[in-house]
Amino acid sequence: MVTRIPIITLLTDFGTEDHFVASMKAVMYTVNPQINIVDISHDVAAHDVLEAGFLLRCCYAYFPSRTIHVVVVDPTVGSTRKAILVATDNYYFLAPDNGVLSFIYEVETVSSVVEITAEHYILQNVSKTFHGRDVFAPAAAWLAKGIDMLNFGEPVEDYVKLPLPKAKMVGESLLKGTVIHVDRFGNLITNISREDYTAAREKMPGNSFKTLIAKQEIAGLKEFYSEGKKSELMNLFGSTDFLEIVQNQGSAAKTLGVGRGAEIGVVLK
Amino acid sequence: MVTRIPIITLLTDFGTEDHFVASMKAVMYTVNPQINIVDISHDVAAHDVLEAGFLLRCCYAYFPSRTIHVVVVDPTVGSTRKAILVATDNYYFLAPDNGVLSFIYEVETVSSVVEITAEHYILQNVSKTFHGRDVFAPAAAWLAKGIDMLNFGEPVEDYVKLPLPKAKMVGESLLKGTVIHVDRFGNLITNISREDYTAAREKMPGNSFKTLIAKQEIAGLKEFYSEGKKSELMNLFGSTDFLEIVQNQGSAAKTLGVGRGAEIGVVLK
Amino acid sequence: MVTRIPIITLLTDFGTEDHFVASMKAVMYTVNPQINIVDISHDVAAHDVLEAGFLLRCCYAYFPSRTIHVVVVDPTVGSTRKAILVATDNYYFLAPDNGVLSFIYEVETVSSVVEITAEHYILQNVSKTFHGRDVFAPAAAWLAKGIDMLNFGEPVEDYVKLPLPKAKMVGESLLKGTVIHVDRFGNLITNISREDYTAAREKMPGNSFKTLIAKQEIAGLKEFYSEGKKSELMNLFGSTDFLEIVQNQGSAAKTLGVGRGAEIGVVLK
Repeated sequence: MVTRIPIITLLTDFGTEDHFVASMKAVMYTVNPQINIVDISHDVAAHDVLEAGFLLRCCYAYFPSRTIHVVVVDPTVGSTRKAILVATDNYYFLAPDNGVLSFIYEVETVSSVVEITAEHYILQNVSKTFHGRDVFAPAAAWLAKGIDMLNFGEPVEDYVKLPLPKAKMVGESLLKGTVIHVDRFGNLITNISREDYTAAREKMPGNSFKTLIAKQEIAGLKEFYSEGKKSELMNLFGSTDFLEIVQNQGSAAKTLGVGRGAEIGVVLK
Repeated sequence: MVTRIPIITLLTDFGTEDHFVASMKAVMYTVNPQINIVDISHDVAAHDVLEAGFLLRCCYAYFPSRTIHVVVVDPTVGSTRKAILVATDNYYFLAPDNGVLSFIYEVETVSSVVEITAEHYILQNVSKTFHGRDVFAPAAAWLAKGIDMLNFGEPVEDYVKLPLPKAKMVGESLLKGTVIHVDRFGNLITNISREDYTAAREKMPGNSFKTLIAKQEIAGLKEFYSEGKKSELMNLFGSTDFLEIVQNQGSAAKTLGVGRGAEIGVVLK
Repeated sequence: MVTRIPIITLLTDFGTEDHFVASMKAVMYTVNPQINIVDISHDVAAHDVLEAGFLLRCCYAYFPSRTIHVVVVDPTVGSTRKAILVATDNYYFLAPDNGVLSFIYEVETVSSVVEITAEHYILQNVSKTFHGRDVFAPAAAWLAKGIDMLNFGEPVEDYVKLPLPKAKMVGESLLKGTVIHVDRFGNLITNISREDYTAAREKMPGNSFKTLIAKQEIAGLKEFYSEGKKSELMNLFGSTDFLEIVQNQGSAAKTLGVGRGAEIGVVLK
């Protein structure tokens, strides 16, 4: 039988020019050499908890069950904000309690949340500025060793849930959303899910598909990036089932001159 | 005896700000926890199959034999382009059949190529936009488990080979090539190999070495970057045996104002 | 009993767009599949040995003892500069002998230094331009296999130590230092350690804390980044115990318009 090596993922805004990520991995391997560490991204915009949350939402469920996800986008490190460990049916999450896990709370069933305080499972002399290294890294590595989560600290009931930008109907025929992420290719990922669209269509049946963004109208629904003509702007539901505005062989973000936060409407009639 | 953990390499244009690479690794570890994943690069210019191919050509052969190389630079994902699995004498390669492996076909002996279609070895509900996650990642991880490649799909004979930029003689005394890559230091890597040069010299014997690039003449052949004076422009054959135009403690690309695709000539008389 | 897999860290100025780092890992895994490779950073400014040394200084000691740290910032590769292997009480370091380990020599007790020359532990046909791949990678992987360091080459006594920028007293009441690193958030990390400050304060007792940088005066000593008002410039001792000039929710580097090498004074009266 194959022994399963626990996986710990890292998602931070630390960048890769500094020693921050390496310091976290160093502490993890010191506590527990029998782990596989996977970087999700360290290039989250500084302090952008919503972007981090969205990226995690897009990939966490592809990891093996019982994977330990560590998210450190932590602008208020050192303040009274809690460090928490969250268990859901299938995964563990360690993060500052600043709402960075709000997207997860929407789609996972939370089974328990504890505040990470047990001195035995964090570094001595915890700094006020780098809990990634001093709190989250050692706690995650101990958890991967099989320590029961109740040993890490007291249960928390009132953990922080941020209001998330939601697609919503405006009038009877406009499903309105926002651009929630711009990917490396300049594709504009919106918060309008396929489910949102299907629900809206049920109330306003029809076959057309048309979006309004940056004062442009984009008609039709495509399935893949090279489906249209060169430089054509297109609508499609991407690989995480959110509506994307994309450009064949180009950057929709540059061409339309918009980015995160831009408004988009799906016209239903 | 030491059990060898299979190595899977990843080379993509996905960047590191998004969840794409992590999603691929997540799927791989879910299928097969007993792998070592090595990132080659994720910063290939978007959709640039030749750049990806060249980078792979520069490093693939240093990996242990039977390493599985996964290349996902895939502008036509979702179209009818095939997903292929290529076996050579020493390595496996998984990639879209868009020519990204053309440099490999030049230097490796291909023993077989199959189209990846077997539903058992790819994800259910394959998206039209992210075969890195849905097709290549699971197939690579199953291959690493020892599944015979013939189980992945039908043989392919007419896989895509792109015409590669080649050094060639112009007249009797000019060996002409192009800049095929600019590295992080601004060194201009050309497609003129040491072999190309030796063959040309046999026909036009002589001891001088002189190049023409961006209307400048660069004389002499150096062996290492700090050999010349500070800021000196120099010719040398680099660590992958291609001719490079470099600048001691500076960027030849910036100083000469040229980049990928620039023409270069080696004057043989 | 758990077998400990040796850890090899990599710190280079190779960037991540090229094949350089992957080539090093390829060679390492070929020599020794039983290793864990951890990237510290590959985004050190090209040829900046001091920056690399400082980053290593900030994180090396968090790794398990006997970790093998490989540093390749190597502007004079191919010249007569030596390739060295350094053992301290707790760690191994492989690097070009160009002073990149100077920060380490300050804080670690060096037990022995050898020049890496033994042909058996480096690649055949060593290039003149890429010792990361041809010398340091294989040597590190063989070391991780348990080869005694004396087998790698002859002892070296006169290894290179660079003069490091030091905090120093100017007159009786000014402790002067420089910005030694700017992190991803724009925090200005100085070379003034908490120890430096404590020692200076002993001679000039007082409770105030005030710095001068870029013609601005910053008063008070904070403990964490979000402690001040929004956009407030602040002094604090960071997670590696060096004085930092930071800005709450902003970049001190941008706001003050200074970077690495900027002068800073701590006013003691």
